[in-house]
Amino acid sequence: MTKGGDEKQGEDTASKAATLFPPMNDVIGYKLRRAQLAVFQDFLASFAKLKVRPAEFSVLVLIAQQPGLKQTEIADQLGIKRANFVALMDSIEKRGLAERRKSDSDKRSHSLHLTPRGAAFCRKMFAVWRDHEDRMIARLGGDEERARLITMLDRLAEPGG
Amino acid sequence: MTKGGDEKQGEDTASKAATLFPPMNDVIGYKLRRAQLAVFQDFLASFAKLKVRPAEFSVLVLIAQQPGLKQTEIADQLGIKRANFVALMDSIEKRGLAERRKSDSDKRSHSLHLTPRGAAFCRKMFAVWRDHEDRMIARLGGDEERARLITMLDRLAEPGG
Repeated sequence: MTKGGDEKQGEDTASKAATLFPPMNDVIGYKLRRAQLAVFQDFLASFAKLKVRPAEFSVLVLIAQQPGLKQTEIADQLGIKRANFVALMDSIEKRGLAERRKSDSDKRSHSLHLTPRGAAFCRKMFAVWRDHEDRMIARLGGDEERARLITMLDRLAEPGG
Repeated sequence: MTKGGDEKQGEDTASKAATLFPPMNDVIGYKLRRAQLAVFQDFLASFAKLKVRPAEFSVLVLIAQQPGLKQTEIADQLGIKRANFVALMDSIEKRGLAERRKSDSDKRSHSLHLTPRGAAFCRKMFAVWRDHEDRMIARLGGDEERARLITMLDRLAEPGG
């Protein structure tokens, strides 16, 4: 079967398109996503027993560090959509790790606090997280590299910051 | 209202939990995710008119660069689950940008090729992508910083590589 003119022309155009882009391995967004997935994969494997996902981890850490913050404040700090945050907080509350309390200053809003059980859970989380984080730092080649990476990630995330 | 013993003890435990973790801004996985979301946000805004999402972009670029690859090969290279890849490819085929052809070597598998329309679309994509990528490089502070970032992301994504 010989190639028709149209098909041949299509292939020429396609081969021109091929030379435009660099290898995907040089594309910033692509590499960021692959690295993020790899780190989350290690995180999820590490936390399989405690059943903690990255978003739950960050919410619990923030409640531990800043008890009394409102739901909207935590959602905003972490860049989680408010609708998603409510479901996340429902699950954390159902597990007895943190609770919503009526805010003293604004009766319509809730402030968030760890329960004693949540505080004990955070200590377990810390040991698991520390191992995971140390593994990631080792992959990078040490603390200096880690600091350099964080600086660059900040530049990407907060272009005006 | 005075605090009961249990509640007081709970707060002491909670305040101990608070001191365990570093600020979330120092946590590698968290920062990676925030940076990735920020870069994808710029990507999606840039490609709103062409209606291209990051996964579609990477699939089209790979088909352009390596015409004739099998579906499973592209899915594996990009780290996309095969089930998700089929839906992605259905959408790309429906838009007339690429097509599945029966493979010569293995009649059961399909090889992927850009259509002439897909090749023209890739040229439009390139202009939009180049602007986006240049903005990200500018955020980082230049090409040298970009190369340094890619190296570090590789270390995270391919710990044995």
